[in-house]
Amino acid sequence: MAESKGVAYRKGEYMALDEARIDIVDPAVTKSDVVFDAISVWDGNFFRLEDHLERFRASCEYVRMTPPCSEDEIRHIMAQCVERAGFSEAVVFILCTRGRYAGGVAFGDPRTCENEFIAYAVPYYWVVPKERAQTGTHLWIGETRRAPDAAINQRVKNFNRMDLTRAQFEAFDHGADAPLLLSMDGYLTEGPGFNIWIIKDRKAFTPGENLLEGITRRAVFDLCGEIGLSAETANLKPEDLHRADEAFISSSAGGVIPVTRINDRPIANGAPGLTSCQLRDRYWERRAEGWYATPVADWLAAPQAQAASAE
Amino acid sequence: MAESKGVAYRKGEYMALDEARIDIVDPAVTKSDVVFDAISVWDGNFFRLEDHLERFRASCEYVRMTPPCSEDEIRHIMAQCVERAGFSEAVVFILCTRGRYAGGVAFGDPRTCENEFIAYAVPYYWVVPKERAQTGTHLWIGETRRAPDAAINQRVKNFNRMDLTRAQFEAFDHGADAPLLLSMDGYLTEGPGFNIWIIKDRKAFTPGENLLEGITRRAVFDLCGEIGLSAETANLKPEDLHRADEAFISSSAGGVIPVTRINDRPIANGAPGLTSCQLRDRYWERRAEGWYATPVADWLAAPQAQAASAE
Repeated sequence: MAESKGVAYRKGEYMALDEARIDIVDPAVTKSDVVFDAISVWDGNFFRLEDHLERFRASCEYVRMTPPCSEDEIRHIMAQCVERAGFSEAVVFILCTRGRYAGGVAFGDPRTCENEFIAYAVPYYWVVPKERAQTGTHLWIGETRRAPDAAINQRVKNFNRMDLTRAQFEAFDHGADAPLLLSMDGYLTEGPGFNIWIIKDRKAFTPGENLLEGITRRAVFDLCGEIGLSAETANLKPEDLHRADEAFISSSAGGVIPVTRINDRPIANGAPGLTSCQLRDRYWERRAEGWYATPVADWLAAPQAQAASAE
Repeated sequence: MAESKGVAYRKGEYMALDEARIDIVDPAVTKSDVVFDAISVWDGNFFRLEDHLERFRASCEYVRMTPPCSEDEIRHIMAQCVERAGFSEAVVFILCTRGRYAGGVAFGDPRTCENEFIAYAVPYYWVVPKERAQTGTHLWIGETRRAPDAAINQRVKNFNRMDLTRAQFEAFDHGADAPLLLSMDGYLTEGPGFNIWIIKDRKAFTPGENLLEGITRRAVFDLCGEIGLSAETANLKPEDLHRADEAFISSSAGGVIPVTRINDRPIANGAPGLTSCQLRDRYWERRAEGWYATPVADWLAAPQAQAASAE
């Protein structure tokens, strides 16, 4: 059997990912009027599934959408996508879209739309090349700024990524792995799919404004607590990164990955930081131990059947 | 025959608009990595087609995309979409998308993608209810700001519209027809699909920063010249709008439409302004005269055939 590229769910049906399509005049395309979340699966376990579902719920509420299915149905659909794709490692995307306008194809009242739920599982992937988890990654701070929350609230996981894509070109042009974007005020925010951290004088800091509050970022706060490392949010400038003792990124797509270069300049001695590596290894050890794990297998049965068997 | 909802072109084929779909993992969906333009057709004529194509070319260049077809082919495809839909009044959308990633479905290098060209014609529509062209429209300046150019260059026509959609909800909540967004600095920018103008002391002013430079906005500069009205760009604050003698919007989807209320407060005496109405009427008169008109019929033949017949 050829390796699956993924399985999608839409309008009550499962299908090969390559067969899952959306109308080109759907507001998800013509207005990026869609919110989403992305949940990692490792060794058959979802990671922090409930945290992701809570954030997804908050994203939907912010944009005034309601998925047309219960959260138990969402858990079940997610599990089915993973199972049908035959993945033990995966990233599962869940989307809520505004839906087509009642009054016309190109223009209409978003309050009249029937919101839609879409899900798909893809093979697990790394936000920077996988080997960088060992060797360290090179990030680039370019000209493009992150859209501010007053315009696009970045706590709401969204696909309005023209700023991230432009910054990605800047990073690739300079041979870096990924961009890191500044806010309009010049503070570090995030990169496409990851949060940034620095370690300075045995304390960990991560930006707190104008960014998605990553679930893996939350896990890093926990891991820092476990190893007795202070961790807090702070307004950080590029010079804080250049002067840091260590730096790393956190992402559902790769866990904890040391950062060793910023704009062609090494951080400290240019080698992955010892504490960063400790956090990276501990992240994977804890996941292997079943930390915040929800077995995909637990949600393969339909919610009705689960409710019945629980009676 | 039922009235056509539209006709689309994709991958060398024409189809009913409702049959035109795109992969749910296409970067046009998952990153809003797509630029577009929208050209009006009235009485069988494109309006300022060459201006739109020039802007589309600039949008593509900014995001580093190249449509996989010539501009003559684009003109031909646009004409075919209108003709096949049987429209004499229409709006034609032309899109360039990044295209699917070579290296994976969810993540990849945008430099490796094969860019794609998509087009579709929909029935002509109005950016606010059509009758407002006579009675005047009510706009709402809410909390949501327009994403700044340093993040998302609004001169590039794009679908990253989470700010516009949120502002639209604010406007509808207050019974207004459409929102008008401020920049991060508090200056007037634009609304979804239109530019804003004021008239004060027999001079016309329109914002010049952090907005799409509309083709109908350009037409209004021309019309002002024709009637001897000075017109220039200016940084405008909400109070400039409240204190204006008149206000109007310009859009490919409706031409010139008087604005009579802002945030529940009437502008001047609350009636459509005389000069605004003069510009509105002149816009349609000039179009009826064939001003900047390109007959759809001129581009129905394939470019190769046109080139051959020109020899």
